[in-house]
Formats: sequence, C-alpha cells, structure tokens
Amino acid sequence: MSARLIILGAGSALPTRNNFPTSQILELREKQYMIDCGEGTQIRMRQMGLKINRLGHIFISHLHGDHCFGLIGLISSFGMLNRTADLYVHGPAGIATLFEPQLRFFCENLSFNVFFDEFHTNKHGLIYEDRSVEVFSIPLKHRVPCSGFLFREKIKECHIIREMIDYYQVPLSHINLIKKGADFITKEGETIPNQVLTTDPDKTLSYAYCSDTAYSEKIIPWIRGVDWLYHEATFSRTEAVRAKITMHSTAEQAASIALKAGAANLILGHFSARYSNQQMLLQEARTIFDNTVLAEDMKTFEL
Amino acid sequence: MSARLIILGAGSALPTRNNFPTSQILELREKQYMIDCGEGTQIRMRQMGLKINRLGHIFISHLHGDHCFGLIGLISSFGMLNRTADLYVHGPAGIATLFEPQLRFFCENLSFNVFFDEFHTNKHGLIYEDRSVEVFSIPLKHRVPCSGFLFREKIKECHIIREMIDYYQVPLSHINLIKKGADFITKEGETIPNQVLTTDPDKTLSYAYCSDTAYSEKIIPWIRGVDWLYHEATFSRTEAVRAKITMHSTAEQAASIALKAGAANLILGHFSARYSNQQMLLQEARTIFDNTVLAEDMKTFEL
Repeated sequence: MSARLIILGAGSALPTRNNFPTSQILELREKQYMIDCGEGTQIRMRQMGLKINRLGHIFISHLHGDHCFGLIGLISSFGMLNRTADLYVHGPAGIATLFEPQLRFFCENLSFNVFFDEFHTNKHGLIYEDRSVEVFSIPLKHRVPCSGFLFREKIKECHIIREMIDYYQVPLSHINLIKKGADFITKEGETIPNQVLTTDPDKTLSYAYCSDTAYSEKIIPWIRGVDWLYHEATFSRTEAVRAKITMHSTAEQAASIALKAGAANLILGHFSARYSNQQMLLQEARTIFDNTVLAEDMKTFEL
Repeated sequence: MSARLIILGAGSALPTRNNFPTSQILELREKQYMIDCGEGTQIRMRQMGLKINRLGHIFISHLHGDHCFGLIGLISSFGMLNRTADLYVHGPAGIATLFEPQLRFFCENLSFNVFFDEFHTNKHGLIYEDRSVEVFSIPLKHRVPCSGFLFREKIKECHIIREMIDYYQVPLSHINLIKKGADFITKEGETIPNQVLTTDPDKTLSYAYCSDTAYSEKIIPWIRGVDWLYHEATFSRTEAVRAKITMHSTAEQAASIALKAGAANLILGHFSARYSNQQMLLQEARTIFDNTVLAEDMKTFEL
C-alpha cells in the first residue's frame, strides 16, 4: 500500500498568502499521523476535503505558536463532528498545562478523550508504536525544546506463493503465520522453510521530519538512510547569519544534512514569509542534493 | 471620510472551503476596530494584504472558539512584527483568565501591552469611546454570555463657509472652535451665529453587529434606525427548529429584526457549513427586507 504525505502548511511563523503555518499528515497503511498543528490546520483540511477519521495521533515538535495554535480549533471541531475515537497528542513537556484549561472551557462534554503524552525532546527514543510504525524522537537544536520525528514502518508480511501453498496443502489457518515468516511442517513431519512458501515483503518506508532546527550534524545518525527527509529551510544562503541567530536552517544546510545522512529524497519546508516564491531555495539546495523538492500547502507527496 | 467593513470570516463553527470563522474589521475615520477573531483571522489579513497598524481595539462577542481562537496567533504575530501600540481586547468575563496563560508562555517579551477589558454582556451600556466613536454592548440570546456591538460615530465637525470666514475676518485660531459649533464675536462685539459661518457636518454612521443570537426582539430598541446591521443568519428557514435549539437565527429572522428595527441595510453572516452557497439565505431574507446583502470572506463593504 502506498504512503502519502499531505502538506497542510509549509510556512513558518508569519503566514503568507499561500503558506499556512506548519502542519502535515503522514498516511501509512490506512492510518493517519499528524505532525504539528499550526493555526488554520483544520481550515486546510476542509479546503482539501480531507477525511481524517483514521487520525489518532498528533505529534507536536515544539511549543512555538506556528506549530500548535491550530490544536484547540481542530479538537473543538472534532467534537462538533461527534468523533468518538481517542486522540493522543504527543508533545514536549508543558503541552498539557498549556492546552488543558482551554480544552476544559471550550470543549466540555467532548464526545471523545484527548490524552496528552509528554515525551523528552532532548533524547532520541521511541515515543510511539503501533502495528504499522515506530515513531522516534529526534532532538533538534532550536530556541526552545524541540524534537523531530522519525517514522519507521514495521516490516510487512511476506507474500505467499499460491502454487507452493497448494502443493504442500497448507491449511488456511496457517497462512497468517507463514506470512509473518513461520516455516510449515507437513503431516508427514517434513519442515518446509518459509522462503520456499513466500517471497520477500514489500519495502518499508522511513520518513524523518526535522523542523525547527539550526544546522545540526548530531541528527545524522538518527536519520541515516531515510527514504524521505523533511528538513526546514527557513532561509536562503543570503540570510545565513539570521538563520544562525534564530536557530533555523538555510536551504543549503538542509541539503547538506540530506547528503550526509544518505537520505533518498529531501522535502524543504517552513519557509520564511519573506520569500513569495521558493524556487531560489530549491535551486540552492539542489546544488548540494539533487533529489530535493519543495513543500507546498495542500500538496500531496506519494512516498 | 468613508467607512468600510472588511469581512475576514463569514463562517460559523466549522470552517468551509470559502468561509473562515467569524472576524471583521470596521474602519472609521482612519481607525480600525476588530470584531471577533476566529481561527485564521491573521491569515485572512495576510491574504488581503491588509495593513492594520491603526487597530487598537478588538471586541469579542462571546467565548465560543469560532469567535476567539485566532486571538493568540494574531497577538503573537503582532509581536513578531514589532508592534508597539497598546492593544485592548474587550470581551466577556473570563476572557483574561483563558488567554493570559498562553499569552505569557507564547508571547513573552512582547513589544507592546495587551489589556483585557471585561464588560457585562447582560446589559446594554457604553463599553468604549474615543474621539470618533462610541461602542455599546447589545445583550444577545445565546447558549453562553454573548453581546453584540453598536458602533455610533460621534458628530463630525461643521464645514466652514470660506466666504463668510473671510468676510468677518475670523482669525485662524478660531476656526477649530467654529467647526465645533461656536459662534464668533467680531472686534466690534457683534455675535455671528455659527450657522451663518458653517454648513451641517457630514452624516455620521451607525453599525450594529449581532452575532451569535437566537431571534430576539429585545435588541430592537438598541439598534433602532442603524445604517448597517450585521445579523447572524446561520440557518435557512428549513432549519428553524435547529436554529431555536442551538440559539441561532434563520435568514428570515435576521431580516425580520432589520425590518422591525428600521435598519437601512442588512448584512447576513455566520453561515452554517452546510450551505456551500448562501443565495438561498439571501432570497429568504429579501422576501422580508429588501436591502439585504451577504457577507463573504475578504469582501469589503463601503458603508
């Protein structure tokens, strides 16, 4: 099954005509994971006609407004739409204290539960997993505690070879075990190795989200070899000094991280409002890392 | 000087492709007054390329999210843009408690002061005035404490008649007093009545904002004869029962209030997300009150 990344907002602190503040949805094996939730996230979802009834987890990178001011509106609207499934918000320490009072006031009698899960932004570790994916924190270098997220899809099931299954008369009840890698023992006691019965599972996906961050080679071991890297590129090379002061990255720095980490693809995002057109950022990055594309509000990437 | 009403959001609780939640800006004598501030208000301002450096006061009708979730983002962005002028937020009791903690956390070291002014939503009274305007509360009938706002422009200066000023040799230092209505006494002691020296001042404007509210004739005395009435019209006549339960109005009810109050013009707004096109609401209202128009995101009315 294909995975998709839906960009809801590719902008940074100040929204522009085209770019809302940061938010995106990763779709993987029919589940949806939201990363960051800037103001207007629910509006973009409506504009795209998105159904997000398989969204159970929101991951907040840090407590700057352009990454979380959309939370309360989103949750409030979920309530009006009579959502019933639990919603988990994973974020830095303090997120519960900040949002729970507003939640209690504006969203009383909510039809579903909201759980805040505070994780450590300063260490790399597993913060969430389900049947499909593991999500790891990626400590970033920013003005406030901040973490990226590495999504590592779990190994998929093997594909059974129909002819071999028939030949060895494997009962239906064994098929799921064999898909998971088990050997098969025939009535006669003969062991049929799994690799005779199956072909390799489909390739799994890895996706790393790194925003907001200054240039930091520390993250490279954690994101090495990812299929897709989303790295902030707030500024052009001409604003390298400003990038350093504000602890953001230039497009070249993002590309440099992608290159050094051996990423297969790079998506640039979190653009400063000063660039009405981000082609220059794209060109700068491509001088270093060719497989680079630009994030864009309401654009969907097939991963 | 002309007055303008800029609609930033004409929607209601759930945003749609076209309608953001409620917010608008009244421009009067080169001052700007914001009414309500739903999520995405600052985004609409950016999309319209609005300069709002003469905005000093925001009036919040009630504490439902679609009328105030944009406050924190707006204030935060003002800070990034190095605003220095004081900002006053007038709203129902509780607004300070709800927003001050987030303000302290997300907007520390703000370059300007934010003052919350809590007013009584359950009585009609003056809540603000400056040289140009008086703003009165209009108690509304909603599920939570809620108030509309009546903006009454103050009487403007008389126009001087240049020939008479010359004829009576009125010194420059007296002109401002005469514009304000004073008579003039000549050197010879003769009193020249003001009406000899001036013509009537320009007509002043009155604007009433009534959202959110169930049909309520109680408000009629407070808004009688207004030039422009903005009245919520969340529903069509086919949803009259739902309007009653949720304490909103139908388009016909809005028109009925406009008619009974003798308003000159009616603007319908706060449309339910169920109507992708509001022409039906307009038609329903016009059967009762002809001078009706529809609010629309990013539309400017010359008042």
